[in-house]
Amino acid sequence: MKLTDLVKFNDQGLLCTVVQHAQTGQVLMVGYMNSESLARTLRDGRACFWSRSRRRLWTKGETSGHFLHVQEVRIDCDGDALLLKCAPAGPTCHTNETSCFYRKVESDGAVTLAGNGVATQ
Amino acid sequence: MKLTDLVKFNDQGLLCTVVQHAQTGQVLMVGYMNSESLARTLRDGRACFWSRSRRRLWTKGETSGHFLHVQEVRIDCDGDALLLKCAPAGPTCHTNETSCFYRKVESDGAVTLAGNGVATQ
Repeated sequence: MKLTDLVKFNDQGLLCTVVQHAQTGQVLMVGYMNSESLARTLRDGRACFWSRSRRRLWTKGETSGHFLHVQEVRIDCDGDALLLKCAPAGPTCHTNETSCFYRKVESDGAVTLAGNGVATQ
Repeated sequence: MKLTDLVKFNDQGLLCTVVQHAQTGQVLMVGYMNSESLARTLRDGRACFWSRSRRRLWTKGETSGHFLHVQEVRIDCDGDALLLKCAPAGPTCHTNETSCFYRKVESDGAVTLAGNGVATQ
């Protein structure tokens, strides 16, 4: 089967993409790809997204040097989400946290800082 | 800080939500929540989504019994994605795979079956 037969971009031409640390399993970020950024990611082995705020292609790390080196790409059962297993060259979040998911939500809706978000902690 | 100050639903009122196995770190699925499904998830401790295809609230496991028992909720830096760390009561995918991300994409675009998708394998 080919990716092009399976992948379903949404009505804005975007595909939800989860980035996971290939070694620790930590979920690092969620981004969106269009078909061009997906092609670049597969070709170059570095995660490239469509920046919805800047409305342009955005290779993660192009400014900071904190590239996400892609080790494996997976697609989900209905073809509308990707999972990238990556070796990050530095912190993934623009706040300098390892992961963008550094805040915890309690059942009463309170939000607290929770550190690095490693999956098994 | 309160969740309601931070969370940003998209223009369709939805929030991208990544489900991760709390023990193994495996990424199990991606779903979408509206504000009501998010409130239910926090209240009941079982993952509840907005089914875009069925256009109704959908508690994962309501038919199969394969509920996702929520152990931790995280929100990302810009408030537009959630991460749920869950104890799944059975396979998460409707195909009976542990994870919806059971297919691997090669750099040439070929898609192959890849098994259970455990993060560190």
